[in-house]
Amino acid sequence: MKQRILETSIELFDKNGFTETSVQDIVEAVGVTKGTFYYYFNSKQELLKDIHLGYIEDLVKQQEKIFSDEAKDTNTKLREVIFLLIHNIKNRKESARIFFRERKNLKDDHVEMIKSYRDLFRKNLQAVIEEGVEKGEFSRRLNPDMLTRAILGMTNWSYYWYKADGEVSEEELTDIYTELILHGISTGD
Amino acid sequence: MKQRILETSIELFDKNGFTETSVQDIVEAVGVTKGTFYYYFNSKQELLKDIHLGYIEDLVKQQEKIFSDEAKDTNTKLREVIFLLIHNIKNRKESARIFFRERKNLKDDHVEMIKSYRDLFRKNLQAVIEEGVEKGEFSRRLNPDMLTRAILGMTNWSYYWYKADGEVSEEELTDIYTELILHGISTGD
Repeated sequence: MKQRILETSIELFDKNGFTETSVQDIVEAVGVTKGTFYYYFNSKQELLKDIHLGYIEDLVKQQEKIFSDEAKDTNTKLREVIFLLIHNIKNRKESARIFFRERKNLKDDHVEMIKSYRDLFRKNLQAVIEEGVEKGEFSRRLNPDMLTRAILGMTNWSYYWYKADGEVSEEELTDIYTELILHGISTGD
Repeated sequence: MKQRILETSIELFDKNGFTETSVQDIVEAVGVTKGTFYYYFNSKQELLKDIHLGYIEDLVKQQEKIFSDEAKDTNTKLREVIFLLIHNIKNRKESARIFFRERKNLKDDHVEMIKSYRDLFRKNLQAVIEEGVEKGEFSRRLNPDMLTRAILGMTNWSYYWYKADGEVSEEELTDIYTELILHGISTGD
């Protein structure tokens, strides 16, 4: 039941916005009483936190699975984490939209909690970049913190324009980003 | 007077949000009557459109100044437009925040108008990338449309984290992005 309430809320928040959706709207759509709702969630904001948490916890889990695989080299880890982000923006698009749009409606302590997961994701990626630098695979010239943010920026930004049904597949977009990050566009020195 | 209303509104929208700020709040803060407000703006939404337009029109104007300078090579144009975006996010931060946050509150026809300027900015940049490819300075391997979106993505994303008073200067961040875009991070092939 908790899962059904979550899924219905994701649909409603995505379609109508968090502020515009009441607990009444949710329980009507699920077909339960308010009592049932409040049995599972203390408040609508608690539910929003759970949606955010579900999105970012899952990303971190998938990322850690990629990064903990000793058989993968640094380039592969980089490529796979870029694919992971693009894939999630595309295939969990309702949750992704809520994650990107409704952050301002989280309670302060929930913001902190979600931010700690976002930071963890970023720092995990930065550790892989630093691993590549250590191994001599990646250049020492670029600040790993800034570089990590640049990589996350270009990838996350695709949320704003990338169409699931567009001309460029997830794999192609991953290849373009990875190629850009690894080799850049200059033909000269 | 129009300018004073605009500037005060930018402060109020940034501080309290567009939805949460009434025309009454604005005229009280400026110290004029509602009549004066409606002499210059048809509605609060018209005013929001003017703020968006002011931000993006100015960016396009500055971009066209950079790109029309025949003395600049393609690398320089690329670097300068990245600096332009970072500089504006930092130095016009109230307007930038409204530009990024309050798009959903624009009226549909205003959204279209602002989008046409955003598209123009993106297409101008894409034309410079294509110019670099034509001249043999940039690699032919990467789709210029996707590449342009990647560059804008990494740069615009700095809106979400870049601190004006942080450790990394605008110039340093510009150097990092430009270096990444031109040469990538790989030390190998």
